[in-house]
Amino acid sequence: MASCTIVIFGVTGDLARRKLIPAIYRLLAAGKLKKFALIGAAIEDVTIAEVLAAARQYVTGEIDEKIWGTLEERSFYQQLDFVEEGDFVTLASLIEQVERDYKLPGTRLVYLAASPDYFCAITHNAASAGVACRRSADDTKWNRLVYEKPFGYDLESAHEINDCIADRFHEGQVFRIDHYLTKELVSNIALVRFTNIVFEPLWNCQYIDQVQIVLSEDVCIEGRGAYYDAYGSLRDVVQNHMLELLALIAMESPEKLTGNFIQEERAKVLRRVQVTDGVLGQYKNYRAEKNVPKASDNETFALLKAEIDNPRWEGVPFFLKTGKCLAKTESVINIKFKQTECLLTKNCPTDSNWLTIRVAPDASFILSLNAKRLGYTDELAPIAMEFCHSCTFGLQTPEAYEVLLEEVIKGERSATVRFDEIEYAWQVIDHVRAMDLPVHQYERGSQGPAAAQEFTKENKIRWRS
Amino acid sequence: MASCTIVIFGVTGDLARRKLIPAIYRLLAAGKLKKFALIGAAIEDVTIAEVLAAARQYVTGEIDEKIWGTLEERSFYQQLDFVEEGDFVTLASLIEQVERDYKLPGTRLVYLAASPDYFCAITHNAASAGVACRRSADDTKWNRLVYEKPFGYDLESAHEINDCIADRFHEGQVFRIDHYLTKELVSNIALVRFTNIVFEPLWNCQYIDQVQIVLSEDVCIEGRGAYYDAYGSLRDVVQNHMLELLALIAMESPEKLTGNFIQEERAKVLRRVQVTDGVLGQYKNYRAEKNVPKASDNETFALLKAEIDNPRWEGVPFFLKTGKCLAKTESVINIKFKQTECLLTKNCPTDSNWLTIRVAPDASFILSLNAKRLGYTDELAPIAMEFCHSCTFGLQTPEAYEVLLEEVIKGERSATVRFDEIEYAWQVIDHVRAMDLPVHQYERGSQGPAAAQEFTKENKIRWRS
Repeated sequence: MASCTIVIFGVTGDLARRKLIPAIYRLLAAGKLKKFALIGAAIEDVTIAEVLAAARQYVTGEIDEKIWGTLEERSFYQQLDFVEEGDFVTLASLIEQVERDYKLPGTRLVYLAASPDYFCAITHNAASAGVACRRSADDTKWNRLVYEKPFGYDLESAHEINDCIADRFHEGQVFRIDHYLTKELVSNIALVRFTNIVFEPLWNCQYIDQVQIVLSEDVCIEGRGAYYDAYGSLRDVVQNHMLELLALIAMESPEKLTGNFIQEERAKVLRRVQVTDGVLGQYKNYRAEKNVPKASDNETFALLKAEIDNPRWEGVPFFLKTGKCLAKTESVINIKFKQTECLLTKNCPTDSNWLTIRVAPDASFILSLNAKRLGYTDELAPIAMEFCHSCTFGLQTPEAYEVLLEEVIKGERSATVRFDEIEYAWQVIDHVRAMDLPVHQYERGSQGPAAAQEFTKENKIRWRS
Repeated sequence: MASCTIVIFGVTGDLARRKLIPAIYRLLAAGKLKKFALIGAAIEDVTIAEVLAAARQYVTGEIDEKIWGTLEERSFYQQLDFVEEGDFVTLASLIEQVERDYKLPGTRLVYLAASPDYFCAITHNAASAGVACRRSADDTKWNRLVYEKPFGYDLESAHEINDCIADRFHEGQVFRIDHYLTKELVSNIALVRFTNIVFEPLWNCQYIDQVQIVLSEDVCIEGRGAYYDAYGSLRDVVQNHMLELLALIAMESPEKLTGNFIQEERAKVLRRVQVTDGVLGQYKNYRAEKNVPKASDNETFALLKAEIDNPRWEGVPFFLKTGKCLAKTESVINIKFKQTECLLTKNCPTDSNWLTIRVAPDASFILSLNAKRLGYTDELAPIAMEFCHSCTFGLQTPEAYEVLLEEVIKGERSATVRFDEIEYAWQVIDHVRAMDLPVHQYERGSQGPAAAQEFTKENKIRWRS
């Protein structure tokens, strides 16, 4: 069981309320945090009791009042302006006081649950005031900083943030995280690919026809107009979640199945990704949303065709599709295999095989094959070989942020991304933005703009989702 | 809808009672037989009403009395000695009379549900008396003869029977059948292998470690002492069902997925099969069974290691295991894939992948893989991707003999075996018999003799069943 002080910048925000505080409670309930304190900081004039009360509803399952009581007892709030160095000095005093009071070892997890606009300011002030101290990676009294995605706004701003961090902390203290990587089915991808020999000969352009990565949401921007209008689909999810999924599918075999080696291979393949075509969209009346400029042409939908310039993926398109305010919410990867030569005397061609990795809402692997239609002798019917995650492991999947905090505390790296991965991903996005694709309107609750249908037809895509 | 006269030699026997008559009823109920008559022949002094009454209990599901009435009305019995030519003349007259009365077209399906000892006599007498007439394969007034397995007793007797048939009928009229080939999951094997590209690169010695074909029964010989003691496991099931399963797994891609081309490929691969080692067994007190000689060393259990001498299967053992009076009844093929290089930092080696084809009692395909253990980051758990046949297609699988009769009536060949397949299979069996393996005793309800456990250890077999 670990002991540490958890400092959250932006503790009054959505992420802390919905994800981080419930995850800390779950770590406590699971006995994975022994001695600890939580110190939240933000600009709002609130109490820690209010912060915790707002988060409590997001804890899934029954709450153990004794454990919740421990959390309340050991949580503190410091009102603070991210750009006021003086506020950080006050915060540092509070942290030291709490660490003395609770006999904490001084190991600190500092979580930046804030806009990347403030990453450099917070990093600088935290360093100056001693909220987090420069320590070597193997120092047992570790101080670790966690940066949420998106890491910057484009390649240039990402470099600025990274330089700002590198001037003040050792790389071993820095955790640029993508919580998508902790989702059970996502973190399964590399293990499943490389521990099952049956996929080895299939995973290349000789057998794979196309890959579809879909991350669609039926919710719209839900009051997050200021943030969303500055980022859009490309920066909000394509640059991070979707390109990381692409990298996990496309990467070469790592030397070992550990975080560092996987980061290495993801970075190598991201460097070879190029988007060659695409369609952008904006849902109708997006401009009427709160805090969205009346003339905004920010995209809330993106459909991209990416190619990977290496021998394994020669000629295999990767289609990425994402959007807000669409017909349904799902996160899925569909791998379409090439067709076999049809040896039947009729009903040719036969259906292609598909491997589907469903990340959400349900978690499963599905291999879609052909078999004999019942009772007939040479007609085919589609069949699905399915591995249902919850059927095997039950519904008690740990939440993404629970896994993530646990990993940072252990100093593990499977949910973190290396800066060069971020660089290559921004290169891809900056290139797409430079293409200056028009932004087409689409109906709320639809499949996206009409131009996306045309793109689908032109590219002969058979969407599986 | 087809019209024909069905003649069954051995209509009072087990096969006709349990399988053939119920299958004819089901074809009628399914509207697949329009104008028809059933003429049964055997040595017993019984009535057709008695024969049908005895068969009725083996019809699964509810019986439509109107259809059963039609079957009763159009069924006839002729007492007859298989070796009495005169009896066949009487039978021929009855057939002609019935065909006139019911305005049947004279197409005839003649089913030899008898011991192979009588195949030649019945064939000769049926030809001489005009019960079945020599006709070219494309004659619309077809006469077809169906021969049950086992086709002979060894290579020599099989040749004698075949010569006897070939002297009197065209090859196109002859249906040597193996009802196992009509079982849903068995008839699926070739279609699944060759219509799903995902199996193409995997199906060879580079990726497959071993193949296990298991056909075990918890029942003992059930009063069939005279037949069983003359045949034993090797002739009763290995020569036909098990080697046909092996052929379907091992054959090269046929030119088309039709009966003739599949027969061609099965024959080619059966020619390259050689058994290199094995263990035979006899369950305890087998010699006390009715009609079994007191000193019988007939085998009721066989475990064989077969190898296939071609580049695809170099070094891949095929283990065949079958027996009576064992712990459980099942019919299953387990394909074990080779191991991957283990990229984990601990818990190496990882489990192998397996493809399981369950023929009976339940019908399913199962692909066993490794995935991430829930919540841990680099520990594996076994998972199964399963296609459950009855879940998809319901429980209304047609009975093997229903499919089989329908195919013979249509003149199709997917459930028949060519004579050269039979020849190569007998060569394999004759070779095993010449090895003169000792016959070890085993407990009823066990896994077989102790010698089989030793064989398992020596050959490093990990039985999946």
